[in-house]
Amino acid sequence: MAGSTLGIIYRITTWGESHGPGLGVVVDGCPAGLPLETNDIQSYLNRRKPGQSRMTTPRKEADAVEILSGVFEGQTTGAPISLLIRNTSQRSGDYSEIAACYRPGHADYTFDQKYGFRDYRGGGRSSGRETIGRVAAGAIAAKALSEFGIQLTAYTKSIGPVSIDPTAFDRKAILETPTSMPDREASARAEKYLEDCMRNYDSSGGVIECVIDGVPAGLGDPVFEKLDANLAKAIMSIGAVKAVEIGDGVEVSARRGSENNDAFRVENGRITKATNHAGGILGGISDGSPILLCAYIKPTPSIFSPQNTVNRDGEEISISIKGRHDPVIVPRAVVVVESMAAITILDALLVNAGAKMDHLKAIYKN
Amino acid sequence: MAGSTLGIIYRITTWGESHGPGLGVVVDGCPAGLPLETNDIQSYLNRRKPGQSRMTTPRKEADAVEILSGVFEGQTTGAPISLLIRNTSQRSGDYSEIAACYRPGHADYTFDQKYGFRDYRGGGRSSGRETIGRVAAGAIAAKALSEFGIQLTAYTKSIGPVSIDPTAFDRKAILETPTSMPDREASARAEKYLEDCMRNYDSSGGVIECVIDGVPAGLGDPVFEKLDANLAKAIMSIGAVKAVEIGDGVEVSARRGSENNDAFRVENGRITKATNHAGGILGGISDGSPILLCAYIKPTPSIFSPQNTVNRDGEEISISIKGRHDPVIVPRAVVVVESMAAITILDALLVNAGAKMDHLKAIYKN
Amino acid sequence: MAGSTLGIIYRITTWGESHGPGLGVVVDGCPAGLPLETNDIQSYLNRRKPGQSRMTTPRKEADAVEILSGVFEGQTTGAPISLLIRNTSQRSGDYSEIAACYRPGHADYTFDQKYGFRDYRGGGRSSGRETIGRVAAGAIAAKALSEFGIQLTAYTKSIGPVSIDPTAFDRKAILETPTSMPDREASARAEKYLEDCMRNYDSSGGVIECVIDGVPAGLGDPVFEKLDANLAKAIMSIGAVKAVEIGDGVEVSARRGSENNDAFRVENGRITKATNHAGGILGGISDGSPILLCAYIKPTPSIFSPQNTVNRDGEEISISIKGRHDPVIVPRAVVVVESMAAITILDALLVNAGAKMDHLKAIYKN
Amino acid sequence: MAGSTLGIIYRITTWGESHGPGLGVVVDGCPAGLPLETNDIQSYLNRRKPGQSRMTTPRKEADAVEILSGVFEGQTTGAPISLLIRNTSQRSGDYSEIAACYRPGHADYTFDQKYGFRDYRGGGRSSGRETIGRVAAGAIAAKALSEFGIQLTAYTKSIGPVSIDPTAFDRKAILETPTSMPDREASARAEKYLEDCMRNYDSSGGVIECVIDGVPAGLGDPVFEKLDANLAKAIMSIGAVKAVEIGDGVEVSARRGSENNDAFRVENGRITKATNHAGGILGGISDGSPILLCAYIKPTPSIFSPQNTVNRDGEEISISIKGRHDPVIVPRAVVVVESMAAITILDALLVNAGAKMDHLKAIYKN
Repeated sequence: MAGSTLGIIYRITTWGESHGPGLGVVVDGCPAGLPLETNDIQSYLNRRKPGQSRMTTPRKEADAVEILSGVFEGQTTGAPISLLIRNTSQRSGDYSEIAACYRPGHADYTFDQKYGFRDYRGGGRSSGRETIGRVAAGAIAAKALSEFGIQLTAYTKSIGPVSIDPTAFDRKAILETPTSMPDREASARAEKYLEDCMRNYDSSGGVIECVIDGVPAGLGDPVFEKLDANLAKAIMSIGAVKAVEIGDGVEVSARRGSENNDAFRVENGRITKATNHAGGILGGISDGSPILLCAYIKPTPSIFSPQNTVNRDGEEISISIKGRHDPVIVPRAVVVVESMAAITILDALLVNAGAKMDHLKAIYKN
Repeated sequence: MAGSTLGIIYRITTWGESHGPGLGVVVDGCPAGLPLETNDIQSYLNRRKPGQSRMTTPRKEADAVEILSGVFEGQTTGAPISLLIRNTSQRSGDYSEIAACYRPGHADYTFDQKYGFRDYRGGGRSSGRETIGRVAAGAIAAKALSEFGIQLTAYTKSIGPVSIDPTAFDRKAILETPTSMPDREASARAEKYLEDCMRNYDSSGGVIECVIDGVPAGLGDPVFEKLDANLAKAIMSIGAVKAVEIGDGVEVSARRGSENNDAFRVENGRITKATNHAGGILGGISDGSPILLCAYIKPTPSIFSPQNTVNRDGEEISISIKGRHDPVIVPRAVVVVESMAAITILDALLVNAGAKMDHLKAIYKN
Repeated sequence: MAGSTLGIIYRITTWGESHGPGLGVVVDGCPAGLPLETNDIQSYLNRRKPGQSRMTTPRKEADAVEILSGVFEGQTTGAPISLLIRNTSQRSGDYSEIAACYRPGHADYTFDQKYGFRDYRGGGRSSGRETIGRVAAGAIAAKALSEFGIQLTAYTKSIGPVSIDPTAFDRKAILETPTSMPDREASARAEKYLEDCMRNYDSSGGVIECVIDGVPAGLGDPVFEKLDANLAKAIMSIGAVKAVEIGDGVEVSARRGSENNDAFRVENGRITKATNHAGGILGGISDGSPILLCAYIKPTPSIFSPQNTVNRDGEEISISIKGRHDPVIVPRAVVVVESMAAITILDALLVNAGAKMDHLKAIYKN
Repeated sequence: MAGSTLGIIYRITTWGESHGPGLGVVVDGCPAGLPLETNDIQSYLNRRKPGQSRMTTPRKEADAVEILSGVFEGQTTGAPISLLIRNTSQRSGDYSEIAACYRPGHADYTFDQKYGFRDYRGGGRSSGRETIGRVAAGAIAAKALSEFGIQLTAYTKSIGPVSIDPTAFDRKAILETPTSMPDREASARAEKYLEDCMRNYDSSGGVIECVIDGVPAGLGDPVFEKLDANLAKAIMSIGAVKAVEIGDGVEVSARRGSENNDAFRVENGRITKATNHAGGILGGISDGSPILLCAYIKPTPSIFSPQNTVNRDGEEISISIKGRHDPVIVPRAVVVVESMAAITILDALLVNAGAKMDHLKAIYKN
């Protein structure tokens, strides 16, 4: 199994390699009757497109999406939506070095161990371009969620040592800074830091946060299909993510119960919580507060600095990786995190439709 | 969907509530021909049994497991293994307070929102006792993995502010300290800290680490079924876990690539890594190094201190939770983390059996 | 994989062997709020219980069901419903002959080939008793369906050469004749035929029909999860079934289109069909007419007559099967067919809840 | 859910409508290292292409397949294989009549009921062209199976009243007759019959048989994932199929056990069966004999003769269906049946790789 399908009802299947003819996704199980046009998807894809600043690879890709099925007269039909994005910038370059050696921090060695050989051109299936299908499917999920008043906002929380100031949150800056930070001042400092990394032939890690507003209480299931468990899987399945946290996450381990419990209270006649350390999920089920999650992202493993490694013949060598690489993965991964979260929430919403007799009776009136 | 099934080939289905007749699990897809007896499972269950120290609830449960199917003449048959653990200590106590109010940090409110009502006795399906089925299934998985030289070791890494000293690692101490810490000195300090929590009618969070040795390179799939993604889901699906990290996890976000990449090298004729920041997984596939993961656990939400909350009638009230509760979830959750990791690794091992033509030709010789 | 789980949202997992401690099923995904008591399930199990006439094995089993979880205060909670039926009549008899040889028409040889050995006592996992879990889960599904006005009726259509007269359909006779035929006259003839079979140390096959009334139009999906495809799988997965047909099934292959098409018409303001050759399903989706299906069942393979076969050492031998066996599987399989159909229809009903935006908006009002 | 994904390890996802930009399939889980080129797939697709005789629709489609991913240097890589077939012959014709009315025997009415509206152009997702993705995925499965000595042969067994003579079986005739019958004489008679149907503005049903040689004993699981259950689902999920039988299927219901049981015997040192009434499957598991299955196919519902039906406004009308339609579905569906069988058998082979400890030890040697 290559494990390219995710979801129970809203089920996505991605495919494609960095240097093959193209990449894409089949979105099955999207409810019928959702207004959808190409630009709903293209605008999401544009957010992860390379070449938009000095902080991203200069590789130019149009990443233009074509809807091949599942949409008719401006609405989803309930049939699978197949989306195709052609690769246009595959350099015919020389991959013999990558083919022959195992780049540190990459999946070259593990692919060879698993499959016996690999498509070594630009990382093949483990390239960052694999996320194109995720973002295309995420755009549709986000569109569907918006019909229920659910809104996702992901952004860069930190790059290397530079973190945003949450009290100075500026939503517009997310799309306007090259770092995707909602804080222009922090963004400027992060850019400086990244320039220093590049000068030193190095790269940087960072953190992405995602806030999901408007999720009704009751989504997610109590045991293995907990909403946070599925978010953790969805986010950890993004290439460079090494940790996932929900709400206050890591910090809760050092706390006392009296500090960490969120008191319930009543506000305008609705039950809500005085604080949201839990990040909107209790017992695996959404509690009506905003869902908060963070993804911790490793530094781009492709660096110009010489590194020790081993080639396919089992000889120790030194390599220095050439080519077009982002000095930090984070800004372009922001929309990927948002997409994976959207896909997960929509699936939970659909699965939950059959949770109780009352739901079903609202649908199947006799 | 209640989402009580996990896994593709090694597929477990748990069931049961805290105060119903019992709890259990059906383990489907265990390979035939594995030697298995009751005690292989009972010894795991005993590790999570309550009442073993002052640090755990004084509730006494025998937690004796009965094998109802799938084992014949001392071996697994390939048929589903059904395991039953009867509840024996359900106090007939008064649950009217819990029934009527929403305890902070618990799933009371979210269950009511999802299902319209709930089995409120002792937390029902969201009780910590739900993990019994996981541990029983994990015991079988660990036994199967041991046949391939794969060994799991989980332990308490920290409780509140008290962390172990990794340079003083003492494996035997895991089973011998009440904290499950592999460091007797740190354990003694953690016990003091917990006593202070209890005196203040409070509770503590903590961190569990799990090391998995002997995993062959090549397990896990490159996209959504990444080994780390499935570990993240499995671990995050445990009740009180709020963050999961693989390898250096959270810390990598502040690093540079040159610090974080693990150089490959050759040792005794085998390819290995000079460091293991990646925690044994590259591109979602095991790389042959030990797999390292951490689970961040929130403080027990049930505390004696008075807390503000809301009742089912939507009135703000103050409650003080009585009953038998652990001041920290961590020590008894150690074997749960180990179990969920074992289940995930075994499933990956089974799924991987069909990964390449060479594997299949080793099985289906003509 | 032992493949003991079925369904997407209403998901059942059966377990147990003929001569182990018991058998059972875990029903996950049953909507919360369904009134359910033990007798709802027991009454279904009683319909497949042995020892009720000369036409069934004289083996006596109480087949008393215990609800272990998922029901609270007389309603399903949304949590998995675990059901246990203890075996009480396992003779300690001598199985050495069955253990050593491959009975014709049984799964002895294939189990040994698949798993390397087998639980040979009474057929083990491939015993007819395996259907107990199906019937228990089917009883719950049928109860849920009845809340939406959906009603299932299965019965014996033929035994050997004796078929019912559909124009003399007598619903009450299904539960009152030993053959489960809805035609007392045909039943009497079938009994005579079976007595002749028994006298000749032989057995008979037969056909079961199932009619499902009240299914709303729109259930089932258009490609692989077609309603008829899932019914075919569910029914063919019953031990002795060798063919499944929907509507006029086999006969349509010899027809012309003008004979086979069902004309739509309007009756009392509702769209309906003038005929129902299609058996209530068009393009994999229910059309609002009754769903009709037939299961063709092979003769009981266990017969007293001597048969040629091979033992585990690969030697040709002759055997004559002793023990307690039904001369025909059909009457006791009627409730199994009904159960598998109910499970399939309920799952389709739950999955369909997320099919279109209108459904979702009926549930998630803002 | 649109239910467009099938399989556990070898998992296919089809998409596309008759009159959209194209159709295709994503094949995930194909083992790495299988030699594969475009022509392996194209040759299968050519077998279902329209316009090859008077017996098929004159619509001309190139049905040229493009491999978009998952193949590198002539071998499968283990990554998903995405296949695209562009539609080239969508007439811009007038679909207003189909859009407004419910054609008898078609899915028009049920799609509208399920989704609220439908892509009415040429049947949309329920067009026969939907099978293109199945055949493309089946071609790959058949190629993989051939590496293990497994060979599939499907053919037309009957058309209307004309059946082949099994004693005159002529394998070459399958690809050379316009009916796909392995009997040239019967084929000539069937052609005459079809001409008569066409003259009368009518259509015909028929039967397809599939023989699968070389399947090792042990494939399939004992309960819900029985090999015959999965074959039944796979075959019944093909548009016009109304019944599926395994081995002697329907006929066994009228037999006695002594007639129907297949005696085991030893031939050339191997255990085999004297007869094969069971069609190669016992207890849901392959027994090493050829697997035999039949699909009963309804007459093409699109006929020129006037038919009574209802329009979307609920008015009774008469229609006469124009356009390009096959007078019989069977010959072009032969390769679809073969493909679905291949997909099912390969998935069973992959799932079975983890069935017993011995298999796993052959792969994971330490």
